[in-house]
Amino acid sequence: MTQCEFLTPVMVAPDEAEGLVCMAARPRRPRRLPIEDALGLTLAEPLRADRDCPPFPRAMMDGYAVRLASAGKTIAVLGEIAAGELCETPVRDDAYLAIATGACCPPGTEAVVQKEHARCDGGQVTLPPRVLPGRHIAAPGSECAAGRLIAGSGQRITGLMVAAMAAVGCREVRAVPRPSAAVITTGAELVSAEREPGRTEIRDSNGPMMAAMLKAMNVDCRMRVQVPDRREAILRAVEEANDCDLVLLSGGVSVGSYDLVPDVMQQYGAEPVFHKVRQKPGKPLLLARNREQLLFGLPGNPLAAHLCLERYVRLAIECMEGRTDLPSRSWGRLTAGLRPRAGRTYFMTAVCEPPDAPADAWRLSPVFGASSADVFTTCRANGYIVVPPGREDHAAGDILEFFRTCPL
Amino acid sequence: MTQCEFLTPVMVAPDEAEGLVCMAARPRRPRRLPIEDALGLTLAEPLRADRDCPPFPRAMMDGYAVRLASAGKTIAVLGEIAAGELCETPVRDDAYLAIATGACCPPGTEAVVQKEHARCDGGQVTLPPRVLPGRHIAAPGSECAAGRLIAGSGQRITGLMVAAMAAVGCREVRAVPRPSAAVITTGAELVSAEREPGRTEIRDSNGPMMAAMLKAMNVDCRMRVQVPDRREAILRAVEEANDCDLVLLSGGVSVGSYDLVPDVMQQYGAEPVFHKVRQKPGKPLLLARNREQLLFGLPGNPLAAHLCLERYVRLAIECMEGRTDLPSRSWGRLTAGLRPRAGRTYFMTAVCEPPDAPADAWRLSPVFGASSADVFTTCRANGYIVVPPGREDHAAGDILEFFRTCPL
Repeated sequence: MTQCEFLTPVMVAPDEAEGLVCMAARPRRPRRLPIEDALGLTLAEPLRADRDCPPFPRAMMDGYAVRLASAGKTIAVLGEIAAGELCETPVRDDAYLAIATGACCPPGTEAVVQKEHARCDGGQVTLPPRVLPGRHIAAPGSECAAGRLIAGSGQRITGLMVAAMAAVGCREVRAVPRPSAAVITTGAELVSAEREPGRTEIRDSNGPMMAAMLKAMNVDCRMRVQVPDRREAILRAVEEANDCDLVLLSGGVSVGSYDLVPDVMQQYGAEPVFHKVRQKPGKPLLLARNREQLLFGLPGNPLAAHLCLERYVRLAIECMEGRTDLPSRSWGRLTAGLRPRAGRTYFMTAVCEPPDAPADAWRLSPVFGASSADVFTTCRANGYIVVPPGREDHAAGDILEFFRTCPL
Repeated sequence: MTQCEFLTPVMVAPDEAEGLVCMAARPRRPRRLPIEDALGLTLAEPLRADRDCPPFPRAMMDGYAVRLASAGKTIAVLGEIAAGELCETPVRDDAYLAIATGACCPPGTEAVVQKEHARCDGGQVTLPPRVLPGRHIAAPGSECAAGRLIAGSGQRITGLMVAAMAAVGCREVRAVPRPSAAVITTGAELVSAEREPGRTEIRDSNGPMMAAMLKAMNVDCRMRVQVPDRREAILRAVEEANDCDLVLLSGGVSVGSYDLVPDVMQQYGAEPVFHKVRQKPGKPLLLARNREQLLFGLPGNPLAAHLCLERYVRLAIECMEGRTDLPSRSWGRLTAGLRPRAGRTYFMTAVCEPPDAPADAWRLSPVFGASSADVFTTCRANGYIVVPPGREDHAAGDILEFFRTCPL
């Protein structure tokens, strides 16, 4: 049986599967993007200042540009400087210039006295007894000298980094783009939403769920099809998705006679990474690679497909985006007892509630479904509790790892 | 001075400002959306099952549809049932039907025996000595009975809820849509990215930053303009943004003679909600309301604009989306000392690192800028530490509140 040759000899544990995903998912080739679209992406070039920032001695407050020698004195006004204005009139010991926040300080300015800290009477101003040198002035280059490295390749682009990019004249930046994806649902029992299902048919719920989840992860889902359990039909769909970075198939990934996905992946020329994970739900999960492209064979059970997408596909997306700050671990306190599975990690749907006080932990309330495929009861969950394999029950109050599901 | 009439008599504290934002930001009118676009939005109608789920006795495993009386016996094969197939042949005490996961169990089926738990020899199968009634069968309606409420109005739409919607035949759902926004940057010293700045000019960094942040929050930024510090120009821009749910202005919101935004908001007919918050950065923040529309006057300082957008605009967006699970609070441990401000809450940019073990706290490392407007050093921060007003220094190891910035 060709199918068996495709399988790796042993099932992997969830941690091993995560490690294999990280190794298989190569960061995408960087490209130039408008800075407005770059927030959250990985920077792929060093960001340097093209000139001193600020480029001139900038007033940081609305107030008065003065000399230190004027401290405590009542001095006369010479004029007013708005932001953007060039003023060549020098400040004198006996006279000031009114200045707006963001404006360029006139020649001779030693400090800016905040409006609220001086007494103004007509054009005359009485200054406080002490005026500190350089007060409320940002000197040229004090925030960033020309040529300085602001952010390096590999850093994640923040909102403030977009501001810094704009400040140094970048309109586009080289960054690692998000991967593109295709969603292929397989299953002879599935009907699409347009058609009323027959007696033994059900509606395709994985297709819309996976498309919605990818969209919420900002991934461009370029293709979405539903195909019957036929080798050629599945292969044709996979070949059509050839230019997508990620191909997500659902269904047909187990060991039944209609489970054609492992076979099709081999026919397509993809190299297996792993097949089967010691977990519940989602044991049949399959990962294969075709050059830079990753193909996930997700189980047909929607609860299992959901877990596998949240845990493994999301990780693949983050790796393809060049992220190195890989998912952090969180812990919380069970509000009810839980029975682990003997040989498998159990990902239990849960309502996860944040703590009210610094010393509290997250509260994790398991959400039990009527069956292992029941999305109707479990859909109010906003996360999963990670229950390690074992024989001892967990009691209410025990601390376990958890993760929240998209969107946060 | 008309400007003063617009001002509320007292500055508000950050908590009060948040309360006022929540009261002013009304949830948007719900509309019908494709379910693929609804993840993360607030459901605005009850979601009910249109039929029993599963609609037929569904096999949950690849295996054999059998009678309980066949336990421990070797029985003959009658045929094979694929998912989606209708089989009218009844199972007998001396004969089984091979069945695929997801298929409809044939008449008389009392249990499905997992492939791995029986010995198969040609067409004959030897069953285990004990077969439990109903094992590996999801009975009709067992996951969800026809008419049952799956999710109520006001609940946040999860990925699994999208799967449930698809399963019960919803292609569209009534939900509260995301708000639309306009970004207006003001300032005579600002030049847009296309033009080389003059000696006293700087490039507009708030415009691209705010646009990028809104995009990362999935908000449709319909309009983005940069206008000089002139009453008519600002008013014209605000009027142009009349159909946007949110208008974000930056700059011109303080008390200098060029700070025209409060005046313009009054001319526009907006009602003030608050002006000035006891915080650093972002003290001049202004919020006004024009019927359902909210107008934020953000400070021109990009660091202050960033903080105000992360803290108050984001909250307004969440309220407009009808969210009731308002931002949770998080606490972490300082890695370095911090000096609070006497009368103001200090939002300190920080690198926030997750704990490695259940008993650990988040590690909060303050990121100090060279000035209060320095985005070049602070742009590596991924959050803010909330330092309450006070006179006593905080030491390394102290626990303080923090929040992470978009994107997580």
